[in-house]
Amino acid sequence: MRILITGAAGFLGSHLCERLLSDGNEVVGMDNFITGNPQNLAHLAGHPKFQFIRHDVSEFIFVPGKVDAVLHFASPASPNANSPLGYVNLPIQTMKAGALGTHNTLGVARANQARFLLASTSEIYGDPLEHPQTEAYWGHVDPIGPRSVYDEAKRFAEALTMAYHRFHGIDTRVVRIFNTYGPRMHVDDGRVVPNFIQQALRGEPLTVYGDGLQTRSFCFVDDLVEGIVRLLHSSEHYPVNIGNPVETTILEFAETINRLVGNPAGVQFKPGQRGESDPQRRRPDISRAREVLGWEPRVSLEEGLGKTIAYFRQKLSLS
Amino acid sequence: MRILITGAAGFLGSHLCERLLSDGNEVVGMDNFITGNPQNLAHLAGHPKFQFIRHDVSEFIFVPGKVDAVLHFASPASPNANSPLGYVNLPIQTMKAGALGTHNTLGVARANQARFLLASTSEIYGDPLEHPQTEAYWGHVDPIGPRSVYDEAKRFAEALTMAYHRFHGIDTRVVRIFNTYGPRMHVDDGRVVPNFIQQALRGEPLTVYGDGLQTRSFCFVDDLVEGIVRLLHSSEHYPVNIGNPVETTILEFAETINRLVGNPAGVQFKPGQRGESDPQRRRPDISRAREVLGWEPRVSLEEGLGKTIAYFRQKLSLS
Repeated sequence: MRILITGAAGFLGSHLCERLLSDGNEVVGMDNFITGNPQNLAHLAGHPKFQFIRHDVSEFIFVPGKVDAVLHFASPASPNANSPLGYVNLPIQTMKAGALGTHNTLGVARANQARFLLASTSEIYGDPLEHPQTEAYWGHVDPIGPRSVYDEAKRFAEALTMAYHRFHGIDTRVVRIFNTYGPRMHVDDGRVVPNFIQQALRGEPLTVYGDGLQTRSFCFVDDLVEGIVRLLHSSEHYPVNIGNPVETTILEFAETINRLVGNPAGVQFKPGQRGESDPQRRRPDISRAREVLGWEPRVSLEEGLGKTIAYFRQKLSLS
Repeated sequence: MRILITGAAGFLGSHLCERLLSDGNEVVGMDNFITGNPQNLAHLAGHPKFQFIRHDVSEFIFVPGKVDAVLHFASPASPNANSPLGYVNLPIQTMKAGALGTHNTLGVARANQARFLLASTSEIYGDPLEHPQTEAYWGHVDPIGPRSVYDEAKRFAEALTMAYHRFHGIDTRVVRIFNTYGPRMHVDDGRVVPNFIQQALRGEPLTVYGDGLQTRSFCFVDDLVEGIVRLLHSSEHYPVNIGNPVETTILEFAETINRLVGNPAGVQFKPGQRGESDPQRRRPDISRAREVLGWEPRVSLEEGLGKTIAYFRQKLSLS
């Protein structure tokens, strides 16, 4: 297959490029580098089956030659309000990537009669009133809140994708991606894993807000990519949650990271709202992924954190 | 003021054009006539302060000369799934009017440093779990259901409008419009008022599903337009509900219409789900409109229905 991936220079996009190339596909990567990083694709330069087009998906997209599948992953995605790359600080770009970008990439799929896969998100569930979230849950989103620029853009993108499926017969897929971690995630993503790893690598005590018994559900990126590839090759048109339903306490993250890094500084408890350092508190019900794709996460916390630590160690030593 | 109104040939748009012209403004009407009707504007042709541009708002918009305010009312809006003009049958056009259309009209407002008013809808509340709905209610919408093409487009439009307000400093307004009736509503709108009036004018018994004690809240169009004009001239940036909170039973609608028309055929009860003939069951809390705009509906049911019957009488005798 010849596959167009938008957001190719992002955390998830770059892993997808790698994986789909190693499966023998031709890959056309697209990115405008607003939040994507050229370094994430540097090792693919010169790969005979990889081509890169620098382009903003909110503008009309032309890809020379036949395309068999389109994976729309372009969007700011960091919830970190303190980072210039956080979507709350790129509101118009985020909404354009979700609406105009989805419209344009669906246009490529339609012109090529290609398969289409939308990267949606657990954010469409908003501040959920049900736990865990199944795909049937409609969500609880403030349409005019600061985070709505991301949430509503992705909800719109899902609705548009389903409309193209129903009315133009496009062969679409929708993946709802939950919290993911791994190499190439933004250093200032704002979530607990990169924060802890950086503190551990600097030999500092890891800052734990509250008692550390609050939990998070994080999926290692290789598992996530496996789920997406299975969805791409399935015939499932309705949204599928991909994420890790296993809850881990913040303390367990901290202690595992300190052990793997060899950081003797321990943890430092600070008062504060639970989850202050991590705005996303959602847990996927992955029954559909298990049933439809035969998928579930396989990478252990130790293994996933080990690979992520190796990445951050190299990244921080280079900067 | 010189005011651009998109969807000018629609039910609400055409009443707004009239009202704003009679207030002394210059009006530039825009419509592509997908669901708008040129007859709705026929009486304004030749008005010295009225100009019309035939254009699809999902394409880039250029309006020659200075614009002081932009009112974005363009969208399919009929919930009637049996009508070719119902938004479920115009899914892509509806999503483009909501996303690309809002983006383009906000662009006009930004280029002109003009005021912007978005026509949003009670549909953003979806299938509400709270009654009545205040503006603080986040709604309950299925992002991938058939009606999502309208609901999610309008939620996206609200989020984009607030983003332009917060990040580009555009002087925006958002009106959430509830069920409205009056002259120029679509004959096949699918809601109870036009259905009843047409049956009454044909001398048929009015079809009442269930016991007729189920209620609806409908606002007469002149009241709605008054609320929108007040909002336009206010400095309120957050969404404001405009609609009629008074609930009327279906039987009361039927009996009032029969009396005003002089239809002796009465009503015919049929089994069926309550509200089968009318998919929208929402009731506004208008506390904010009262407080911020000093607005509430003033037209009585008799007066409003009388004017609407006169319109349908003429319309049906002409066709």
